[in-house]
Amino acid sequence: MSDLARIGVAIDSALLARFDELIEQRGYANRSEAFRDLIRDELVQKSWESPDADVVGTVTLVYNHHVRMLNEKLTDMQHDHHQNILSTMHVHLDHDNCLEVVVVKGKAGAVKKIADALISAKGVKHGRLTITSTGAEL
Amino acid sequence: MSDLARIGVAIDSALLARFDELIEQRGYANRSEAFRDLIRDELVQKSWESPDADVVGTVTLVYNHHVRMLNEKLTDMQHDHHQNILSTMHVHLDHDNCLEVVVVKGKAGAVKKIADALISAKGVKHGRLTITSTGAEL
Amino acid sequence: MSDLARIGVAIDSALLARFDELIEQRGYANRSEAFRDLIRDELVQKSWESPDADVVGTVTLVYNHHVRMLNEKLTDMQHDHHQNILSTMHVHLDHDNCLEVVVVKGKAGAVKKIADALISAKGVKHGRLTITSTGAEL
Amino acid sequence: MSDLARIGVAIDSALLARFDELIEQRGYANRSEAFRDLIRDELVQKSWESPDADVVGTVTLVYNHHVRMLNEKLTDMQHDHHQNILSTMHVHLDHDNCLEVVVVKGKAGAVKKIADALISAKGVKHGRLTITSTGAEL
Repeated sequence: MSDLARIGVAIDSALLARFDELIEQRGYANRSEAFRDLIRDELVQKSWESPDADVVGTVTLVYNHHVRMLNEKLTDMQHDHHQNILSTMHVHLDHDNCLEVVVVKGKAGAVKKIADALISAKGVKHGRLTITSTGAEL
Repeated sequence: MSDLARIGVAIDSALLARFDELIEQRGYANRSEAFRDLIRDELVQKSWESPDADVVGTVTLVYNHHVRMLNEKLTDMQHDHHQNILSTMHVHLDHDNCLEVVVVKGKAGAVKKIADALISAKGVKHGRLTITSTGAEL
Repeated sequence: MSDLARIGVAIDSALLARFDELIEQRGYANRSEAFRDLIRDELVQKSWESPDADVVGTVTLVYNHHVRMLNEKLTDMQHDHHQNILSTMHVHLDHDNCLEVVVVKGKAGAVKKIADALISAKGVKHGRLTITSTGAEL
Repeated sequence: MSDLARIGVAIDSALLARFDELIEQRGYANRSEAFRDLIRDELVQKSWESPDADVVGTVTLVYNHHVRMLNEKLTDMQHDHHQNILSTMHVHLDHDNCLEVVVVKGKAGAVKKIADALISAKGVKHGRLTITSTGAEL
């Protein structure tokens, strides 16, 4: 991305030791990478507070594909919002259950509305909207 | 799924009116569907508290594919855990940025560890683990 | 409160059994009480989405009271917003550390701003805004 | 607390600019304080994952004090767990509604159990457990 700045951070030694332990457990190569992740996560959360912000999200759905017409309904809904829906992945979890992940892009308000509609569809057992970003500003 | 029970729920009229308004906004066909979703979400959250529980999750990653070797690294990591990784979807967000969704299945403890490793990889701008379930028990 | 309605909810027997188990663990006297709690929690979360909504919250702060002037600063900040601050409780956790809980009432936007200011004060080790409601509409 | 370390963090200039804007909005005096808060929040969340960890939490309850025997019941429950309950604050929100904040200390598992019991009590309209720490290790 852009050029790199190098800043100094003052931090209690004991706190730093505990942070180093945590980021090692999580697999970070170095502290700077971990700090950047903390920052970016704050910015992503903040960005979703405004309904007009440009965001990217994933909608995770678990459903029984034997429920009559559910598959068709979910597909129809996605086509109705094709400007906002980038891609969909379908995974067969077992004989009955499917997991579908829908990648959604657009204004935060519109993306939430699409997610609500998919998650509330009759027959969807569990649904979650996960918020992220286009990456362009991170 | 299993056979259907019909239970009675006592609820203040004013509270019920506000709930009806909320679920209409979200697009629920009826109250029973909304109640079942609330229940299932509680059960999913609860199930993830035990590291030995069988769970399904999605890991959402946003990264710049120009970062040297990142793509290879993420692919290698996924192959190292191929027993736990069901499927991956890749979306091109813009010239630089990709979104990848990885569907992970297994013990909650193992799934969290894989998610940590993917999210902490150098060059990944934003990552999130979303928890859901196999659907079999919902 | 208002008069009581009695509604019927259709739910798969297996799902109901798991729900009954969960609410027994949590100590609910009956299902209706558990359902009402699920509903009210959704409504509280929804209410905080609008910055103009009337809300109540608690700000939990942990800090070392030996940090110079921190106590005075936190008190001053609370007095500056006395119209929004209902009450404060102070607990001595150990020789150094205090926990303070500040009950805040007002528009969601204003309450968030006060919470941000208290949590970001130099010397505050950990802070959290917890959202709830005046109870009047629940 | 302990002696202070000074570490260098490499960060993209554009990302740093957005972070600086965010922490100014939140009222942070400087970047180091904001970084330390991000770290401590991660550590607090991590600490609660283990049921045996020593934690501090606050339970926020909103209830109608006209509900028969509710006040007595909540007081009794708190006395039953007096080793874990440090302090309680009671606020009169309006003619009917009270807010009570209970500060709880102990093993994470025990603290969650007490919170569940208080929140599930019949007549409690809304309840939330907020997790924090004794501050001793932060």
